[in-house]
Amino acid sequence: MSKVLVLLSGGMDSAVVLGKVVNAYGAENVVALNMFYGQRHTREIECAKDIAKHYDVKLMEMDISSAFAGISSALLSHSSIEIEDDQDKNKVGSTYVPGRNSIFLSIAAGIADSIGAEFVYYGAHADDHSGYPDCTTAFVEKMTEALIEGTDNGVRIQAPFVKYHKSQIVKDGIAIGVPFEMTHSCYRGEYPACGTCPTCQLRLEAFKEAGQIDPINYKGDFDEEDSDSRD
Amino acid sequence: MSKVLVLLSGGMDSAVVLGKVVNAYGAENVVALNMFYGQRHTREIECAKDIAKHYDVKLMEMDISSAFAGISSALLSHSSIEIEDDQDKNKVGSTYVPGRNSIFLSIAAGIADSIGAEFVYYGAHADDHSGYPDCTTAFVEKMTEALIEGTDNGVRIQAPFVKYHKSQIVKDGIAIGVPFEMTHSCYRGEYPACGTCPTCQLRLEAFKEAGQIDPINYKGDFDEEDSDSRD
Repeated sequence: MSKVLVLLSGGMDSAVVLGKVVNAYGAENVVALNMFYGQRHTREIECAKDIAKHYDVKLMEMDISSAFAGISSALLSHSSIEIEDDQDKNKVGSTYVPGRNSIFLSIAAGIADSIGAEFVYYGAHADDHSGYPDCTTAFVEKMTEALIEGTDNGVRIQAPFVKYHKSQIVKDGIAIGVPFEMTHSCYRGEYPACGTCPTCQLRLEAFKEAGQIDPINYKGDFDEEDSDSRD
Repeated sequence: MSKVLVLLSGGMDSAVVLGKVVNAYGAENVVALNMFYGQRHTREIECAKDIAKHYDVKLMEMDISSAFAGISSALLSHSSIEIEDDQDKNKVGSTYVPGRNSIFLSIAAGIADSIGAEFVYYGAHADDHSGYPDCTTAFVEKMTEALIEGTDNGVRIQAPFVKYHKSQIVKDGIAIGVPFEMTHSCYRGEYPACGTCPTCQLRLEAFKEAGQIDPINYKGDFDEEDSDSRD
């Protein structure tokens, strides 16, 4: 069986993708790829290591922050843009990183083409808030076409959750035993998680909608019920 | 007028693209982007600096070689694949760098989206030998669609030579005074150029077909007529 690449950020969406891919292809055929791109914190990377270890898959770690030196986003440590709790849902938020998913997918496609992997999986989903243009069905379809055309082996992107809401990802993850306690989402990189940044809000809503308890710790009131779950 | 990004490798094709873009938009609106991606030599980078200085445009230089650590190609210094003089024209050659143009264009699109540039120019052309899948009209069209979709401002790729043969690029460059003596093509990074690697062969043929003399120096017999042109 050919190898499969999975973009593994350390967040919950890509952890569920990895769980599903390992079930489908077998851990020995899966390579996880984590890229540090200059974000403000490295907690996600530690989570990616834990998750890859949990699933017993090879993890490729790369520091590609130099490629983002000319790119502006509140998520990047070199940028002076602030992360705001309340983003205008009608426009692209400050946490949008221009070109990020195209860059990630292109690098992954290059590696896949080099090692003979047919698929690159990533965890874009329908609730990627702030209107990220590189998380939509249309983008995934067009980028897939471009990379099939632009690689020798016709590498294909697979984004199994692109039409899913995040609560469905929680349900799917729970069903297959994804270790959500190992994942990180908070944009501020705080631990316990801040609970107020856009991605903490989205995660909390998703678990609530799914009727599940998020096992990670949150600051203040959020962590009363599960403060020792990650110890 | 909005800014325009030009991928500037230091080779002859992108130098002609830059010359045309500067004529069309004015040097003050043009940013050249040179990316070191782990190739075996850095002579191209010195050429890119000379060319950018010649045209008085801002040059962004980036070392993104870490992004190519998992990619295999004869052009990459970490790879053990050899550059061969005679490549089978029916299959993709050893000098193909999987994902390279997708990665370059994605990074450029991210920067363009960050600085409000509408266009990213690059010098793919019809003679990109060895059947590079990321230099074709189909790839350019599909990647353009993907990046328009995946960026906030709908950044567009422009590949003005994608249907041109290299000899036409020579003619166009001569017509607008492109400093071909400042450009580098040899895959082996040799100076004088080896004259035998696939890209030296292609360059020599293009100048011959265009009825022009290539002003750079070549090893052995090639440089008899113009050995002092770059001194």
